[in-house]
Amino acid sequence: MKATGVVVEYNPFHNGHLHHLRETRIATGADIVVAVMSGHFLQRGEPALVSKWSRTKMALEAGVDVVIELPYSFATQHAEIFSKGAITLLDRIGCESFCFGSEDGDIHAFDNTIQFIHTNQEQYDKYIRDFIQEGMSYPSALAGAYQRLEKKGSVIDLSKPNNILGFHYVEARNRFSSSLKAYTISRESAGYHDEHFASPSIASATSIRKSIFADGQNHEINSYLPDSSVQELYSYKDEYGSFHRWENYWTLLQYKILSSSKAELQDIYEIEEGIENRMVEYAKSSVSFEDFMTNLKTKRYTWTRLQRMLLHILTDTHKENMRKRHAHPEYIRLLGMNKKGREFIHQQKKDLSLPLISKLSSADQKAISLDVKAAEIYSLGLQNSSARKKLLHQEWSQPPIMI
Amino acid sequence: MKATGVVVEYNPFHNGHLHHLRETRIATGADIVVAVMSGHFLQRGEPALVSKWSRTKMALEAGVDVVIELPYSFATQHAEIFSKGAITLLDRIGCESFCFGSEDGDIHAFDNTIQFIHTNQEQYDKYIRDFIQEGMSYPSALAGAYQRLEKKGSVIDLSKPNNILGFHYVEARNRFSSSLKAYTISRESAGYHDEHFASPSIASATSIRKSIFADGQNHEINSYLPDSSVQELYSYKDEYGSFHRWENYWTLLQYKILSSSKAELQDIYEIEEGIENRMVEYAKSSVSFEDFMTNLKTKRYTWTRLQRMLLHILTDTHKENMRKRHAHPEYIRLLGMNKKGREFIHQQKKDLSLPLISKLSSADQKAISLDVKAAEIYSLGLQNSSARKKLLHQEWSQPPIMI
Repeated sequence: MKATGVVVEYNPFHNGHLHHLRETRIATGADIVVAVMSGHFLQRGEPALVSKWSRTKMALEAGVDVVIELPYSFATQHAEIFSKGAITLLDRIGCESFCFGSEDGDIHAFDNTIQFIHTNQEQYDKYIRDFIQEGMSYPSALAGAYQRLEKKGSVIDLSKPNNILGFHYVEARNRFSSSLKAYTISRESAGYHDEHFASPSIASATSIRKSIFADGQNHEINSYLPDSSVQELYSYKDEYGSFHRWENYWTLLQYKILSSSKAELQDIYEIEEGIENRMVEYAKSSVSFEDFMTNLKTKRYTWTRLQRMLLHILTDTHKENMRKRHAHPEYIRLLGMNKKGREFIHQQKKDLSLPLISKLSSADQKAISLDVKAAEIYSLGLQNSSARKKLLHQEWSQPPIMI
Repeated sequence: MKATGVVVEYNPFHNGHLHHLRETRIATGADIVVAVMSGHFLQRGEPALVSKWSRTKMALEAGVDVVIELPYSFATQHAEIFSKGAITLLDRIGCESFCFGSEDGDIHAFDNTIQFIHTNQEQYDKYIRDFIQEGMSYPSALAGAYQRLEKKGSVIDLSKPNNILGFHYVEARNRFSSSLKAYTISRESAGYHDEHFASPSIASATSIRKSIFADGQNHEINSYLPDSSVQELYSYKDEYGSFHRWENYWTLLQYKILSSSKAELQDIYEIEEGIENRMVEYAKSSVSFEDFMTNLKTKRYTWTRLQRMLLHILTDTHKENMRKRHAHPEYIRLLGMNKKGREFIHQQKKDLSLPLISKLSSADQKAISLDVKAAEIYSLGLQNSSARKKLLHQEWSQPPIMI
């Protein structure tokens, strides 16, 4: 059995993901698609719309064969650490290749770009330092430095979000798993951050979430999601009473900031340079998460970076603790599989170099503690206390989802 | 000007308090009554129904001349530390006496009791140890040990809650301020913990609060409170949207327990003997504060002691921090005064041995930090985020209330 991997958030699973899945099978010729999917919290430092279990169901219904979890310590990080975790896990579970969507769509251009930056590393690093000293955010400095280098040959446009992620996947592959073959397919019809619907059937997850929160009925989104995803979203709302968004956690975040000492805040992962002072100030004067973020935002920090800091505050994730956990993945947590996926896992099982977790209680509790805490805190975003209790316990009681 | 002191929570101010106030003036012959009042959180480890500012207004409207705050580090403690803080503050602000309500009503019996226990200290301490080893809670062990001693002369019944408090006031006076004269008056018509209305105009604060939460209209309570208290309660509800009760803080407490490590919980004031394990377990399985407390309760811990532990968890009050703060009062915080009260304060000002705080920004921020944090967290019990912001800022912006 030949397996390929995809790196996903599925927040929620939509037609663009379906397209990516089909093209991945064609491009790689694989029998099995393994998705490494972020848990309850995502790379932009946000809670997922619905739980990882619900998103696993959507993925399986749409044809993914195996879903494994990208742990909190990788899922909520900038592209480099994120990619290290995702690519390493796909390698360790026995994929022969991985395939990502990109604006560029040409895998050779990615290889060329890495080679090109490598050759010009010194100049590139200097430009980055210069831009950061001018007060630019880190991602803008990276893009600016790359822009300024004199390009040769076919290289990618590193200002495009999916190209950036793909670049880091390929780079992580080069560093941690030389045997994984990389594929890319061209993304169609929807920019990553687009907030409006552009094509008749493909829309960005951002625009879909916006529509979900704007409209109680959500008829508008039906044409952009497979039926199975629409059904799963409705049934989640029915079962748990609401979707998850940062505003649901605002009071908890406000409480956490106001009840912590400055020293405690400084000890949180990613907190630096005295930003905790501004956080304490605005936690007192802001009336919502949106309001708080708007007050906090400066040119120096991207919205995403701030959200990630706040997420680590919410989950009380300390520098030391994160440093131990994101060195390399320590386990493979199985979230779900279909029949073919079970055969694949059965076949791989004996040769895995990392423990395979399908029951939380038998896992190394220390290694997985961040994921457990994240899951428990994610559940507190629900209003209804019985729904909250149910979701909190799902982390412990849910075996891998089988379809 | 001759001043006397009373130790109060006024949660809320009712006709029993009015009676105590009148009798205090008669018994002591004082021109001025100074109330040392607990802030937002109370001795039973609970949030006050309404803020300290609102309760200060009730007190002034009902004839109290000066209201000063009993700091968090004394207000949320067992009787011994609570009394040390309250009696010391009344002494330092220049009272000549203090007067408390008690079931017994005879001040000589209090003096006799202290003398009697002193004489039998060794036997008394042994009985206490025995009872605690049998698994009894500390207050029950105290009462049981006293019960077992062979009494001589007129001594008080130390199983009665107001007698117990009064006993500790007098004992604190003996230790920290020999010049304060003690008075007691007999409490009338309502037991401290009574949940039902017994007399036509006097009811316990417990029964009044119960009625307030049970009935949106609260007509039933009108006969047990002065009109000014009723008006203040209505206007608080109008302004802030709700009263405060533990349930308002349940999600925050649940979040705090689930996001803290066991070591962090063990470091919280009053947490001992592995109770943090039970707290973590029940924080996952309980659906409300009431449910949580019921699950947590054992014979060993009184409801009050558990609530105080949980309050210190909520306010993130560490052992070390509390130890520094409850050694002795470090400041006198002025909450309100009437015209006569202002004259009294003006007269005392130059001779005070503790700093008098009427503006928070000019206080020793380290010394007062627990009170500030408590006030900010108290405000998070309000649903409406603008009301929450207003109450949070009142801690900083409110000068002493003048009528």
